[in-house]
Amino acid sequence: MNETKVKILSIGDELLIGQVINTNASWLGKRLTEAGYHVDSVLTIGDGEEAILDAFQDALEVDLVLVTGGLGPTADDITKPTVCKFFGTELVFSQEVYDNIMAIFARRGFQMSERNKMQAFIPKSCIYVPNRYGTAPCMWLEKEGTVFVFMPGVPFEMKGIFNDELLPRFEQRFKAKPYAQRVIMTTGVGESFLADRIQDWEKNLPDFMSLAYLPQYGIVRLRLSGRHEDASFLKNSLDHEVTKLMNLISDCVFALDDKPIENVVFELLLNKGLTLATAESCTGGNMAHRITLIPGSSEVFKGTAVTYATEMKTAMIGVPETLIAEHGVVSREVAEHMALGMRKLSGADFALSSTGIAGPSGGSDENPVGTVWLALATPTGVVSQRYNFGKDRENVIERATVTAYAMLLRYLNGQDKSQV
Amino acid sequence: MNETKVKILSIGDELLIGQVINTNASWLGKRLTEAGYHVDSVLTIGDGEEAILDAFQDALEVDLVLVTGGLGPTADDITKPTVCKFFGTELVFSQEVYDNIMAIFARRGFQMSERNKMQAFIPKSCIYVPNRYGTAPCMWLEKEGTVFVFMPGVPFEMKGIFNDELLPRFEQRFKAKPYAQRVIMTTGVGESFLADRIQDWEKNLPDFMSLAYLPQYGIVRLRLSGRHEDASFLKNSLDHEVTKLMNLISDCVFALDDKPIENVVFELLLNKGLTLATAESCTGGNMAHRITLIPGSSEVFKGTAVTYATEMKTAMIGVPETLIAEHGVVSREVAEHMALGMRKLSGADFALSSTGIAGPSGGSDENPVGTVWLALATPTGVVSQRYNFGKDRENVIERATVTAYAMLLRYLNGQDKSQV
Repeated sequence: MNETKVKILSIGDELLIGQVINTNASWLGKRLTEAGYHVDSVLTIGDGEEAILDAFQDALEVDLVLVTGGLGPTADDITKPTVCKFFGTELVFSQEVYDNIMAIFARRGFQMSERNKMQAFIPKSCIYVPNRYGTAPCMWLEKEGTVFVFMPGVPFEMKGIFNDELLPRFEQRFKAKPYAQRVIMTTGVGESFLADRIQDWEKNLPDFMSLAYLPQYGIVRLRLSGRHEDASFLKNSLDHEVTKLMNLISDCVFALDDKPIENVVFELLLNKGLTLATAESCTGGNMAHRITLIPGSSEVFKGTAVTYATEMKTAMIGVPETLIAEHGVVSREVAEHMALGMRKLSGADFALSSTGIAGPSGGSDENPVGTVWLALATPTGVVSQRYNFGKDRENVIERATVTAYAMLLRYLNGQDKSQV
Repeated sequence: MNETKVKILSIGDELLIGQVINTNASWLGKRLTEAGYHVDSVLTIGDGEEAILDAFQDALEVDLVLVTGGLGPTADDITKPTVCKFFGTELVFSQEVYDNIMAIFARRGFQMSERNKMQAFIPKSCIYVPNRYGTAPCMWLEKEGTVFVFMPGVPFEMKGIFNDELLPRFEQRFKAKPYAQRVIMTTGVGESFLADRIQDWEKNLPDFMSLAYLPQYGIVRLRLSGRHEDASFLKNSLDHEVTKLMNLISDCVFALDDKPIENVVFELLLNKGLTLATAESCTGGNMAHRITLIPGSSEVFKGTAVTYATEMKTAMIGVPETLIAEHGVVSREVAEHMALGMRKLSGADFALSSTGIAGPSGGSDENPVGTVWLALATPTGVVSQRYNFGKDRENVIERATVTAYAMLLRYLNGQDKSQV
């Protein structure tokens, strides 16, 4: 069986000059790979007719070309006329596209401009693929057996159309070579130590599998992936290897699925009918931000006090001023009182708290930059732990957030209850 | 003078399957553009000999090819043998590279492995470019007048070598055409409306300039860039055009520099000695998260109440239960009371609040998904505004956050005080 070869073509000067990072291409690469297609290359070019035509011509050697960018309403977008030239067609008015643009403007309560009306012109020979997410049309054209799909460059529009509309059409049209993967989410152990613990297992993996380490902010994602004609053999083999792997590192695995740790916590709390609140100083609301990105989080999440100023710790959650004066604001005592105070105020079953020095300045000998106290108040008491998360501000904030959720997760899973 | 045309070639399966985002290419694109070279394209291909040879052959049409990746010590790296094949040379042992690897291992206190020794073999006809940052050699080869530079894929090694070693060599070898840009940050007006307002100005821009629209989450960045032999003429011309542009759209410009809106708000508040707090429902702490990413934000930011559960609006910031019952939780009255309550509780000069439906479910006919009320409490009162930010949860959260900061910024800038 021949593999389906796919090219991703990204159009936009802003990508070439480094003003925007091409995250669309990596998202598409991931989704296409998972769907069983072979991503042959990613080509990024500028908004110039000649470069675009050359790229289209070169792309005729693959089965499918996904083009992003160049479909917005403004003057720097020249993709559509160039598409017409390449496919030997012309732009015509589409009532269907027009109605979609109208509906979106009506929903947002805006008047439609002349420029937006221009978006309703699409190449005569194209198949219009509905875009429920924005005004730029998605278009499907074919030439010499190669399918070209033109997608908007705005990431959430592009993703929505890909998932809703395109993938089902690709499944009808193209052959897939089964691909499967397992993602093992770990926290609490660094990449190289993890690698040492699993090196013998890794060495003995079958040829059709590969392992990747993807570290980020206190988490190491392990991705075990493979391709095999026999999809059920592939799946069984992956499961078998994951079982062997779990025997080696189960103590630091928090999910067997590629999801953020706060989602795992959310699902557990939801299933148990339990609730959470947070009291945040150095994490500045990031614990709340993370969990409220999850649809339905209001079922579990009560609220947060971001007590960034010291006096707010007293005003909002009743941490005694004398306690702060005695122990300092970055201390076990303050972290624990914050968690206890927030648990009481919110009526939640659990409260997580943070107090620390995110940096880059503000450290002392006793509490250098990166020092963070985390605490967890539970129905039976409070536990806390001191950490140092390094010198980079964003890194400190993200790692403290992940580590706090890991603390709660360990408690919920009943592991290591005394220590948390 | 002809422009120097550059291709960036990124090698690695991990890039194609979306496991790693190609940030190297955007970093290089930015640096090369600033240095006055024209980035023609970025091509990403996998670790396969045929694809690599094809890409090398196609690249002979440009002046300079920067290749990243494929030079590490692990088994999937086949770049070096393929380089030898293309350039008709062979791998030879280099004492200079070996000494560099030895020195790096000694510094890190590690033993050198057989695998690392292999890295000391480089193509006979190449110029070795020193790498002080890691063990992979950087190599310079030429064919038919095109320069190929092979760089390590590890970002901090790649960046170090580029800045220390390569850029000075490029300046010796290649012609540069001065490049400059201005970034104009706008909010409150959609891309197409903005385009309508500035179309006459845009049409009359000099040939050597171009304008790009870069929309994201309620912000449209405008990038005006140009290339010209005469660098000071270029800069003056850009400044002149920006002045003309500001006459057209100053009401929606919040910065003449590429920075987030919360940073602009932070700097203004800091300079005026004023403080801020937030009371967040549907934004879930994102307003707080954004501003606390800024070093030194504790000078300005007091704290936040994320009153996600309805009863927390009463418990934390004193919004009367009767008011919520009467008007509904997503209402002008609740938004305004949240802002007023938080301003009082925190003692801050300003408080921003949000209440709405981030979705994807939970909407009603009266308040569909995406409806958000934002309010701003000031020393003299409170103002509020209703918005609809669409159906995507993350999009609603981000746009509501940006729009709330824009509200405060308009107030601080004294524009449109009655409306905010």
